[in-house]
Amino acid sequence: MAAPSTEQTVNVSNGIPPPSFDLPYPETPETITENLLKLGGTIPNTYVAADHTECWLSTCTSTSKKRGTITTEEWMNSIQFLTQVGQTSTPIRQEFILLSDVLGVSALVDLLNTPAIPGATANSVLGPFHTDDAPLIENGESIASEGRGKYLYIEGRVLDTDGNPVPDALIETWQADETGLYDTQYADRDGPDLRGLLKTDKDGKYGYRAVVPEAYPIPGDGPVGELLVTLNRHNMRPAHIHITVDAPGYRKLTTALYPEGNVYLRSDCVFGVKESLVVKLVEVTDEKETRRRGFPKGNTFKLLTFDIVLVKQ
Amino acid sequence: MAAPSTEQTVNVSNGIPPPSFDLPYPETPETITENLLKLGGTIPNTYVAADHTECWLSTCTSTSKKRGTITTEEWMNSIQFLTQVGQTSTPIRQEFILLSDVLGVSALVDLLNTPAIPGATANSVLGPFHTDDAPLIENGESIASEGRGKYLYIEGRVLDTDGNPVPDALIETWQADETGLYDTQYADRDGPDLRGLLKTDKDGKYGYRAVVPEAYPIPGDGPVGELLVTLNRHNMRPAHIHITVDAPGYRKLTTALYPEGNVYLRSDCVFGVKESLVVKLVEVTDEKETRRRGFPKGNTFKLLTFDIVLVKQ
Repeated sequence: MAAPSTEQTVNVSNGIPPPSFDLPYPETPETITENLLKLGGTIPNTYVAADHTECWLSTCTSTSKKRGTITTEEWMNSIQFLTQVGQTSTPIRQEFILLSDVLGVSALVDLLNTPAIPGATANSVLGPFHTDDAPLIENGESIASEGRGKYLYIEGRVLDTDGNPVPDALIETWQADETGLYDTQYADRDGPDLRGLLKTDKDGKYGYRAVVPEAYPIPGDGPVGELLVTLNRHNMRPAHIHITVDAPGYRKLTTALYPEGNVYLRSDCVFGVKESLVVKLVEVTDEKETRRRGFPKGNTFKLLTFDIVLVKQ
Repeated sequence: MAAPSTEQTVNVSNGIPPPSFDLPYPETPETITENLLKLGGTIPNTYVAADHTECWLSTCTSTSKKRGTITTEEWMNSIQFLTQVGQTSTPIRQEFILLSDVLGVSALVDLLNTPAIPGATANSVLGPFHTDDAPLIENGESIASEGRGKYLYIEGRVLDTDGNPVPDALIETWQADETGLYDTQYADRDGPDLRGLLKTDKDGKYGYRAVVPEAYPIPGDGPVGELLVTLNRHNMRPAHIHITVDAPGYRKLTTALYPEGNVYLRSDCVFGVKESLVVKLVEVTDEKETRRRGFPKGNTFKLLTFDIVLVKQ
């Protein structure tokens, strides 16, 4: 694949840095709420569009009591904002979902409907970049064509909560490349790349070649993008690898793995990161290991080891 | 004017009766909220679209705690509903304002920004039917062309809160006809009708001929109309006469007078009625009075007497 399309919108970072204060990972409904309020609280005027949006429809039941009042002008601004969000949406772009994402509502709905189970792998957001054309690969093969980024090998086991291996579990995985773009964001896409479907072996093991992903911005050219700027919030997602796991008798898992060290981990603009999903990438320089993983001779690679634990239905 | 346009949408009642239980007039933020919840509470499933709409953006701060949860399907329904509301809006139709109206938000914002002053005339909603072409008339003249409804005479004084008359106050008034339609809803409108501008005399008195207005439905052909049906709420506004009063040194008043006896008074779908704005229409059969008010010989008329009290700035 060549340079990013000039026909499609390539999302652009709004340039706002992550907050200077510490944020806990949004593991619970309460921390999602608290983080949202802390992020919004970094600007002096609390009556910004985000507040309106979040509050005007709920004014009847809570906000007017909590906040005192909303001016007629603020009300009208909120009407115009919500109308723009609706009118920016198209069959292939859903700006209200984006709004739900950046207000933490999507993460919250996910958490409320698939509560964390102790010992099981946590959920994370599905995101808008899943496609239906990921190719089936064998264990050990690559999901990435050459030149999409620094070599990465992802391996581990799929287990149940008692520690028993889950053989024949179907893993689907997709990711952005080293420039933070998915294959679908290139106009000259001639097929899937950085996507794959594979099955665990009889011992529940899986392993595949990929590339080190990069952080990327969500769409900044609509009302939600403007909202984040008004809120002094960056529009970045930390780098991640999407993974879903489907096995008969188990609850389907939708999650993502987030390499440690990214500056946006704790302030992910869509509240997707949980601490248990933050993973180490270990630099491997041993030539024998490189060869065993199928990478070209003379290269090093990063190794990501992660055991996925499913919940019985 | 002839029959209602077939080119413009003439709003249609959804046929749902007013609630069978008593509702207080929505005089305070609390009663607006309580009435909204009572109206929504008449259907068994509390997870209807209205709830979603009102709650999903506020899920982060209150609703999830209050209500327990929202399912992924309900969340998606709310996304689709809000998107439709945005996409139904056009330069001449604002469906988000309509949503704000039927959820009581508009009435609440109005109440929060122009709080009731003891002794002064209460505010009511402006509505979407104000135009800028109302003709100037003299006291005693008519705002209505012949055949628009049963004769009505409206008179009274404009006073300050100390009971002093306010001369030269500019009154603007507009109303629906006996079929519940405003002039702007007729395709063959060739000028303003049922609208007028007049000034109080040196004693603060005003008086003009009009017609008895009729109740009418708000637009039912969009997502907000569907929402009301889902909520088992009628889409009717009780009959009313719009009045604004502007006088130097006084806060501008936007209000409406609601003839008593209408079945929709307490469940006005936009929460506009306050008890102090419900007025008596007195049948006048005295031929001398009819003549004095300028109505054609041999007719009776209804008399509406109302003193308007302004607040000093």
